[in-house]
Amino acid sequence: MMKVVVIGAAGVVGRTAVDALSGRHEVIRVGKTSGDVQVDVEDVDSIRAMYQQIGKVDAVVTAVGHGHFGAVHEMTGDQFMEGINYKVLPQVNVVLEGFDYVNDGGSFTVTSGVLNRDPIPGGSGFAAANGALDGFVTAAAVEMPRGIRINVVSPEILEASRAAYEGFFPGHVHVSNEAVGLVYSKAVEGCLTGQVFIVD
Amino acid sequence: MMKVVVIGAAGVVGRTAVDALSGRHEVIRVGKTSGDVQVDVEDVDSIRAMYQQIGKVDAVVTAVGHGHFGAVHEMTGDQFMEGINYKVLPQVNVVLEGFDYVNDGGSFTVTSGVLNRDPIPGGSGFAAANGALDGFVTAAAVEMPRGIRINVVSPEILEASRAAYEGFFPGHVHVSNEAVGLVYSKAVEGCLTGQVFIVD
Repeated sequence: MMKVVVIGAAGVVGRTAVDALSGRHEVIRVGKTSGDVQVDVEDVDSIRAMYQQIGKVDAVVTAVGHGHFGAVHEMTGDQFMEGINYKVLPQVNVVLEGFDYVNDGGSFTVTSGVLNRDPIPGGSGFAAANGALDGFVTAAAVEMPRGIRINVVSPEILEASRAAYEGFFPGHVHVSNEAVGLVYSKAVEGCLTGQVFIVD
Repeated sequence: MMKVVVIGAAGVVGRTAVDALSGRHEVIRVGKTSGDVQVDVEDVDSIRAMYQQIGKVDAVVTAVGHGHFGAVHEMTGDQFMEGINYKVLPQVNVVLEGFDYVNDGGSFTVTSGVLNRDPIPGGSGFAAANGALDGFVTAAAVEMPRGIRINVVSPEILEASRAAYEGFFPGHVHVSNEAVGLVYSKAVEGCLTGQVFIVD
């Protein structure tokens, strides 16, 4: 049994990881206002406090983030940076601050998304954020200390988000919540590292 | 004959674009302290002043940026953000501020690099920056106004950088300066959009 932290546990995506891992492992559900432990992932001090509260773990999963959605020719630099500041940097900081808390041979799993490989109008800020996460993980994996693995899950639109995104993703498939959960299971319980796990 | 702006014209990479395009086009060489026009790409006001000085153009090429090189488990969030703030955001801002100055059917070409597809230790910050640029371009292309194209050139290590990077990229090929210039030519003079042009 592993001790697994899932940050964003109450979200549509994070919930799939919780569901997939809860039966076999001790899952600590972390949210901004819900769950077993609370964290503000946009505040590094809050991330540090979270780790101090939880202590040593075997795996950390993050499925958090937000950004700006809008046409590129109407976008400001500040709007572009929202995806970086609120989706990329929080998940990267969970990794950077977590090395002292993840056990030897443990893992980090972060979450990107479909928009940098199958874009839609208005999605260039999110596409940049996803690309940054995919790139970071690909390169970080080659030098992780103590056998720690790192992967990124890049899911298509989930069944659970179908209604919320109705009309915005014409022709995109909807992946089952279970399929996404299985990939978090592979990232946490498997042996691979440096992977962009595409779910579509 | 097109009017082409090359930002970073004195750099190892930008120079290949200047050499490839100068014979057939009016090339305006832009640098921080050199060239025909000066710009500080980290300052949006300076980018705006550059466009006001140059006026309407057919193509904008950017080959600029720097970042932090270092082991991921010793990296701070601020160090991670250097590649974002100094390689990604400047090139994105050149695009975002350039729509009023690029003619119908014109193009933007930005520059990423090899580290998100063929990483080396210490390169996770640059890999994130490259991934962000690749993702941004992929998605921005689907909604560019007035037939404007956008691509990103992602070159391997150039022959001209061979000595400077000696020992850091074991087994990586060195692409000729001419090969890189040809790809900028394709991006500027060709018909494709939304491409990550890999040169290796």
